Amino acid sequence: MIERPPRPQRPERFDGDLKVVSLGGGHGLAASLSALRRLTTELTGVVTVADNGGSSGRLRQELGGLPPGDLRMALAALCGDDEWGRTWAGVLQHRFNGDGPLEGHAVGNLLIAAIWEQLGDHVAGLDLVGDLLGAQGRVLPMAAVPLDIEADVHLRSAPDRLTVVRGQVEVASTEGQVVSVRLDPPDPPACPEAVAAVEAADWVVIGPGSWFTSVMPTLLVPGLRDALIATTASRVLVLNLAEQRGETEGLSPTDHLDVLAAHAPELALDAVIADASLIDTRGTLESATRALGARLFVSDVSAGPGSDQHDPARLAAAFGQVMRQA
Amino acid sequence: MIERPPRPQRPERFDGDLKVVSLGGGHGLAASLSALRRLTTELTGVVTVADNGGSSGRLRQELGGLPPGDLRMALAALCGDDEWGRTWAGVLQHRFNGDGPLEGHAVGNLLIAAIWEQLGDHVAGLDLVGDLLGAQGRVLPMAAVPLDIEADVHLRSAPDRLTVVRGQVEVASTEGQVVSVRLDPPDPPACPEAVAAVEAADWVVIGPGSWFTSVMPTLLVPGLRDALIATTASRVLVLNLAEQRGETEGLSPTDHLDVLAAHAPELALDAVIADASLIDTRGTLESATRALGARLFVSDVSAGPGSDQHDPARLAAAFGQVMRQA
Repeated sequence: MIERPPRPQRPERFDGDLKVVSLGGGHGLAASLSALRRLTTELTGVVTVADNGGSSGRLRQELGGLPPGDLRMALAALCGDDEWGRTWAGVLQHRFNGDGPLEGHAVGNLLIAAIWEQLGDHVAGLDLVGDLLGAQGRVLPMAAVPLDIEADVHLRSAPDRLTVVRGQVEVASTEGQVVSVRLDPPDPPACPEAVAAVEAADWVVIGPGSWFTSVMPTLLVPGLRDALIATTASRVLVLNLAEQRGETEGLSPTDHLDVLAAHAPELALDAVIADASLIDTRGTLESATRALGARLFVSDVSAGPGSDQHDPARLAAAFGQVMRQA
Repeated sequence: MIERPPRPQRPERFDGDLKVVSLGGGHGLAASLSALRRLTTELTGVVTVADNGGSSGRLRQELGGLPPGDLRMALAALCGDDEWGRTWAGVLQHRFNGDGPLEGHAVGNLLIAAIWEQLGDHVAGLDLVGDLLGAQGRVLPMAAVPLDIEADVHLRSAPDRLTVVRGQVEVASTEGQVVSVRLDPPDPPACPEAVAAVEAADWVVIGPGSWFTSVMPTLLVPGLRDALIATTASRVLVLNLAEQRGETEGLSPTDHLDVLAAHAPELALDAVIADASLIDTRGTLESATRALGARLFVSDVSAGPGSDQHDPARLAAAFGQVMRQA
């Protein structure tokens, strides 16, 4: 029998109670949270809610609520560091097999959707799941309503003009070059608890993750963007380790910074973390970083040669260096 | 935020550590567990796993495991007596609305099915859910494999001969008089933990519940029946408050005892609890009770005049009386 621990165990703290907010979605946000939980317990994940594919897309269509998948993944990344927390994280991540109506659904998505229906409150529902996991931090949606992403794309089939592509899945897998994204509706209400977390933060972390479909959207919710610009928190951006087929094919690390500047022109940064494998482009990357008001930190943060995954311990070390020096 | 309590709270105990096992399924078992939890913390529910309808039937068909519905309902009846336990019980009991593929599924059924797939162990999975709920007792399946019920029925459309009706739903809603039921397969392996609980029990409780489709099946698993016959525990039967349309239409309380005797001829009883509303038939009921070796306890156990639901507090009082006097 797996003992339910009396209270979530806390990791060793970095420098007291440093308040950190990490924004994004999917595997990128899970990677940053897995790293940041090693540094602080005052951790909040703020999650893009524009997914329209897979289990989340089906739930959104059938039940009409927020897409739960990226929220589930972020919660699992923060699960208690004991058998209870890891067991429940494994359960929530479990996907049904077969070829029936449940096929592909992560049971945590179904649980979160049911809790939302039962409690009628997104944040209370996510807190309840966090408490089940003994989560070492909090996970919030960036907005209180489900969103769609619309992109202007130079399609390979029509390179001379901009074509509007709609939907997170469609943008992420587009055959062409994404120029910019926007939200539909364009001015969704920000999640008040997410705004408050950004306002109270010592550090805000942007990225890594799918640049146009997970990371940029967190800068496009008006109330959240205003908080990101106004906060006294320092801001650190984590660059991806590689291009992503489809949405960022052909985009250099410097291009990623240009995309950020184009989507959030008023947002200054304090630090940019780039993997050492990106040093070929270090010259232009340093200029682009300086143009955003930030300092470039080059560090070994990849899980291994050629991997597009960040290693949690290495990324934590990089965050630690940034937070001590920037 | 709902605080997760450090340990399941325990109710006041009845007479030390009286070990009680309650057998059945559905609302009947939930009613007996809701009553018995007021008397002891050493409580085990043993649940029929022959459901083939509703959410459970669909899961059984799609995923091939045990039907989780009656197990979920029994666990919810044992949930911790605090906001945490009640909230999670409410979540697990929540059913999806709408007209999509999830419609009608209780999310607790989906969670239990996923946990079984993830852990590969029915009992460990149910213990995990019980621990989530802070359950005041344990819930076990009667058998380790899903079962089907087959009944011999005098159909109204063919009253002169016995017709075989197959399936819990079909038997429960049959248009005719059920004579007897059997299991398919006829000799499923009993759940070893359920057998051990019966062997170690001070009291075994049979019923209330759907007589042919929830209660009788618990007497038909060979290993479990042998334990019920051999145990040194005292045995109390709780009669239903009314006939059930379909499976027990036209059956008197005395007929219910005859059905029991026919399905488990070697099983002696120590006590039978009957609601005071059944006293019209008290003469024959007392004889039939004595014929089973038992004493009849007549008590006000209904939730109200004409109700077919047992009141947990009244049923607990009746159990208390029986356990002190029988």
